[in-house]
Amino acid sequence: MASSFGDKIKFIIFGQSHGEAIGVVIDGLPAGEVIDLDELDKFLDRRRTGKNALSTQRKEADKPVFLSGVREINNNLETCGSPLCAIIKNLNAKSQDYAELLDKPRPGHADYTAYIKWNGKADMRGGGHFSGRLTAPLCIAGGIAKQILARRNIFVVAHLLECAKVRDKDFKDLELNNNLFENIAAKEFPVIDDLQGEKMQQEILKAREEGDSVGGIIECAVINLPAGLGEPMFDGIESKLAKVLFGVPAVKGVEFGIGFDAARLKGSENNDEFRIINNKVMTQSNNSGGILGGITNGMPVIFRAAIKPTPSISKPQNTISLSKLENSELVIKGRHDPCIAHRAVPVIEAAAACVILDLII
Amino acid sequence: MASSFGDKIKFIIFGQSHGEAIGVVIDGLPAGEVIDLDELDKFLDRRRTGKNALSTQRKEADKPVFLSGVREINNNLETCGSPLCAIIKNLNAKSQDYAELLDKPRPGHADYTAYIKWNGKADMRGGGHFSGRLTAPLCIAGGIAKQILARRNIFVVAHLLECAKVRDKDFKDLELNNNLFENIAAKEFPVIDDLQGEKMQQEILKAREEGDSVGGIIECAVINLPAGLGEPMFDGIESKLAKVLFGVPAVKGVEFGIGFDAARLKGSENNDEFRIINNKVMTQSNNSGGILGGITNGMPVIFRAAIKPTPSISKPQNTISLSKLENSELVIKGRHDPCIAHRAVPVIEAAAACVILDLII
Amino acid sequence: MASSFGDKIKFIIFGQSHGEAIGVVIDGLPAGEVIDLDELDKFLDRRRTGKNALSTQRKEADKPVFLSGVREINNNLETCGSPLCAIIKNLNAKSQDYAELLDKPRPGHADYTAYIKWNGKADMRGGGHFSGRLTAPLCIAGGIAKQILARRNIFVVAHLLECAKVRDKDFKDLELNNNLFENIAAKEFPVIDDLQGEKMQQEILKAREEGDSVGGIIECAVINLPAGLGEPMFDGIESKLAKVLFGVPAVKGVEFGIGFDAARLKGSENNDEFRIINNKVMTQSNNSGGILGGITNGMPVIFRAAIKPTPSISKPQNTISLSKLENSELVIKGRHDPCIAHRAVPVIEAAAACVILDLII
Amino acid sequence: MASSFGDKIKFIIFGQSHGEAIGVVIDGLPAGEVIDLDELDKFLDRRRTGKNALSTQRKEADKPVFLSGVREINNNLETCGSPLCAIIKNLNAKSQDYAELLDKPRPGHADYTAYIKWNGKADMRGGGHFSGRLTAPLCIAGGIAKQILARRNIFVVAHLLECAKVRDKDFKDLELNNNLFENIAAKEFPVIDDLQGEKMQQEILKAREEGDSVGGIIECAVINLPAGLGEPMFDGIESKLAKVLFGVPAVKGVEFGIGFDAARLKGSENNDEFRIINNKVMTQSNNSGGILGGITNGMPVIFRAAIKPTPSISKPQNTISLSKLENSELVIKGRHDPCIAHRAVPVIEAAAACVILDLII
Repeated sequence: MASSFGDKIKFIIFGQSHGEAIGVVIDGLPAGEVIDLDELDKFLDRRRTGKNALSTQRKEADKPVFLSGVREINNNLETCGSPLCAIIKNLNAKSQDYAELLDKPRPGHADYTAYIKWNGKADMRGGGHFSGRLTAPLCIAGGIAKQILARRNIFVVAHLLECAKVRDKDFKDLELNNNLFENIAAKEFPVIDDLQGEKMQQEILKAREEGDSVGGIIECAVINLPAGLGEPMFDGIESKLAKVLFGVPAVKGVEFGIGFDAARLKGSENNDEFRIINNKVMTQSNNSGGILGGITNGMPVIFRAAIKPTPSISKPQNTISLSKLENSELVIKGRHDPCIAHRAVPVIEAAAACVILDLII
Repeated sequence: MASSFGDKIKFIIFGQSHGEAIGVVIDGLPAGEVIDLDELDKFLDRRRTGKNALSTQRKEADKPVFLSGVREINNNLETCGSPLCAIIKNLNAKSQDYAELLDKPRPGHADYTAYIKWNGKADMRGGGHFSGRLTAPLCIAGGIAKQILARRNIFVVAHLLECAKVRDKDFKDLELNNNLFENIAAKEFPVIDDLQGEKMQQEILKAREEGDSVGGIIECAVINLPAGLGEPMFDGIESKLAKVLFGVPAVKGVEFGIGFDAARLKGSENNDEFRIINNKVMTQSNNSGGILGGITNGMPVIFRAAIKPTPSISKPQNTISLSKLENSELVIKGRHDPCIAHRAVPVIEAAAACVILDLII
Repeated sequence: MASSFGDKIKFIIFGQSHGEAIGVVIDGLPAGEVIDLDELDKFLDRRRTGKNALSTQRKEADKPVFLSGVREINNNLETCGSPLCAIIKNLNAKSQDYAELLDKPRPGHADYTAYIKWNGKADMRGGGHFSGRLTAPLCIAGGIAKQILARRNIFVVAHLLECAKVRDKDFKDLELNNNLFENIAAKEFPVIDDLQGEKMQQEILKAREEGDSVGGIIECAVINLPAGLGEPMFDGIESKLAKVLFGVPAVKGVEFGIGFDAARLKGSENNDEFRIINNKVMTQSNNSGGILGGITNGMPVIFRAAIKPTPSISKPQNTISLSKLENSELVIKGRHDPCIAHRAVPVIEAAAACVILDLII
Repeated sequence: MASSFGDKIKFIIFGQSHGEAIGVVIDGLPAGEVIDLDELDKFLDRRRTGKNALSTQRKEADKPVFLSGVREINNNLETCGSPLCAIIKNLNAKSQDYAELLDKPRPGHADYTAYIKWNGKADMRGGGHFSGRLTAPLCIAGGIAKQILARRNIFVVAHLLECAKVRDKDFKDLELNNNLFENIAAKEFPVIDDLQGEKMQQEILKAREEGDSVGGIIECAVINLPAGLGEPMFDGIESKLAKVLFGVPAVKGVEFGIGFDAARLKGSENNDEFRIINNKVMTQSNNSGGILGGITNGMPVIFRAAIKPTPSISKPQNTISLSKLENSELVIKGRHDPCIAHRAVPVIEAAAACVILDLII
């Protein structure tokens, strides 16, 4: 009833931040799909930690080990039809940093809600099952999905549209193609306009110095989807994507096309007029983000996800003691990210790729 | 695979705008729950059409007929445990208004995507299964859910937070209780600040005169939920609500708590500090909208949904001819709403009530 | 969580025996499929009651009314992609016959278990949601599924293999083709060997005279399925069929191929050896019923379902009073079937057709 | 879409016989449940191989490693609410034994159907995902479920009712209580009547000598279930159990209560009359196996599963060459069981325990 999604392909994420391992089961992948391990590693590297002062100093190699669902063929892996399981061992956990937190829930975290839900029996060391670390197995799944989609000429990429109020370029003002996508994916800091990216990084470092954190908005696009994908009403593309996106820790908002801005336009401004262009049905604008009635119209699918600022900050905060049921104070120790929005960029891609693969199979 | 949602309680919506009937099946309702038909009718009346120039002139009594799942007891209905089916007959359909549209897809509508998905076999008269009319059976379900929740002291209400750039008061600046909720629900036009509501209505009428339309943002709150509801990751409250909300026609964005604004705050500003107040664990602010890690924290659950402007406008628009595959023009006839955002307010409540009931049972 | 099945196509059955109507929603049918209403009626006629002394005297025309999911085209119906809902009104209910039963649960019926499950709030008039009448909407679904399958050259038929210890011929001793299937389906009493059918009918009438009832075993075959259908483990064909078959009232056993008899053979006797016959991979015997590892091997899928004797008999029986919680006696009045096994034959076909259609789409 | 089951608790099985590891994910277990590892090991030992000449000589320690969902507390494990993953490494695989089989599908096995389903890309070494080895992770899940159920006073046990035509005593002729259950579970060979067990073992050894195999019938009982568990129609207990039981390799038939024999009785013989006994509602007989209308009536739930003879026999068999598409012969090498029915006894218990736990939570 949780930690899983998908219809024809089922994705299940398991693990706690300081448990033995984290991992993913993918049931329903087509057989005979090659998994390029180098390419997968490059993708996983985009969310890896500890590369610089922009993120947590917890260093994890995060190399996936494949337990099932694949055969080794010519030094590579190929899916064999049965459920794929891949895991990552947890090696660099420092649970002592979390001792105080077992009694004092961190503001903005799931510590308190997990405590209530599981009657104090949750394993919340390092955030437990709610840790951002759980996005690593989602990225394994998404990295595999991206490879399978690319073979079908479908590409997914995201960038950091906004961070600490600094704004990157919008996808809607650019021509979306795989060159642009590869260009963004290859960058250390995932923006289109590197000058704006520089400013964002300065803001992140400034927040770090202040013992504080910043958030951001991620924009993602999927190109070359056929028209007619998705179901009406509650299994439309928007519903399917939103379900998974809101499962990514820290996401508090999701919008498609121009999203909330559509509410401020007239119908005559917001409607995307149909045109025949190069013998293909297209729309002149793409305010709908490629989706009408929950179903793709053949234009790029575009959406944005709002990432709240990392709740783990080193500034002193008010909280309570669960054992004494009285007010208390908290200074969070441990290694934390002053911003997770830039590292969440490949995570959002992964979520989108998994959902799209489930739809297209 | 579509038109349905829910885990322990399953909701299925069926029907086309100009078909024989529209309806809902609800499987899993607790037995022995009274359905107060007067109260249900009052709720359904809030989305009814044809009351004034603010909405379409299609007049439908929209009285639900209960086919199963209930027994008559003392001139009232009581659930009996087996699946409930309620339908509304379609009486006032004028399909001739739609003849041209079968070949010329309306910009902003599902006409084209349904045409592709179902190989030209969709019944798109009046928007078919994608019509806003399909929110009527959702409101039957939601109205029943609201009654069952109210008996458990849980209340759901929404208001039109923004329409045509005119802004109502925010829930976050008010004390949320059932008095306020009943007050809003009793109004002809669902806003907190009636002066702002007047301005919104003027904008809607102006758009109508221009043959155009406007959109809006709906804010919804659920109070008195216990802490600990919801599942981690992809079955969190946000995921469950978003899946259903994006199934409501015209919704293009969903955000929880302060949503996208959270992306612009520092962690120290956004975190909701825990406090013991009246021996209860509460948070000082409620930027998270009552949800941490996908699980309720006992504070009000608050979210917003962006409603795009009605795509059916009478202004001439560019489109294509599907039969000739060439560019064409379109002037939409028929009876349409210059705004659906105010009528969507009870629909959003209904969606929320169904999801919450499924969680709480 | 109940009264529904299917993955890509979802079937939901609703209604109580003496409620307003019974019906079915089918979500996910391909668009553009013609529903031949005459053929559907012929199929429904095979389970109709009141034709002779072999079954209950409750006469219901049981004409389905289609509320959604179809368009009328050339005096016929065509699916349009959105969820199909069809209902049958309950017209000939005599609830007074059931007054005593509300306090005295009938042995062998769901009266007691439904009473406990739904805290005395179940609508058990005429058996409520557990009545054999609920197989009528399943037959609407199955009749439609059979038409769609037939267009893909896949045929489903069942016969009454055994009734009151009288045995019909076995499918495994016959060549299975559509001629044989149509021959069986056209018969008043669904057996292969009419002499044995005569004996069965005499036993049913004898049971009727004694105020008693008899059961039977139904054998069903599906031909022309491609190899490779079904999933490993818990979503194999056997699992999917069994889930639905055990949902048919009175089914107490299900076996595939030679079923329980396989447990008494040696491996060398039970294994079906592969052979190339007419350039096609076949097996020499078909003890597995066309299924290996949950997946079709291209041979006919064959299974059997055991139908217990109708629990409603007019002989006096011991039972209890639920209100007094003391022992009591019961003489069941009303119109009941001395045997339902022969009427269940098309129901088993319907169940199989729905499951197979869901697999093949 | 496969290899998984469960509603409120989700069980997913993964792995191939000769892959890296096999395992299970269980999502939705209640938090705070102790897992007694010694007791779990004792349960797993009941299906272990290589103990004597009655089963395959492939020796696997089959010690589960827990990757997630638990915390170590006082040298024991306790569930923590998040998804539990446990794996078993594959150590003793001899894939060379299977080289010939890649081209020559074994009669009675899934070799051919998996080949077709996954376009020749399946990993069928050792039977791949269809191997009986995959019942080991099911037993981990079932062993945990049994411990949780036992704490709620619910007990599950199975015995080998029939093997090679030798018959053990029937549950219906015995008083079912936990003493009897523990007595059976403690035996090397799981029968009630040890003399009959001796005869069965002789038949198994005889089959082994002949290069052949035998099957059997397993009977399982669950006691102390409350009345009112289960849903009507397709989510009844019978449907839920059958779905999982048919997912156990080699099961070809499932029946509840007296099952197929019910089809040969009169209604007056088959109906279980209700009686008040010790102030409790009971039935005098239990022909229904404790289930009416898919819902428990408070009597023991009893069912039987038919296990076909092991298809891997060393006698020469006819088969085909997939590469040449011509007839061929096959002599299966490798280590195989002359009977799996006795080792399947705890597997059937495991399946039942998982399903019942899902219902009771």
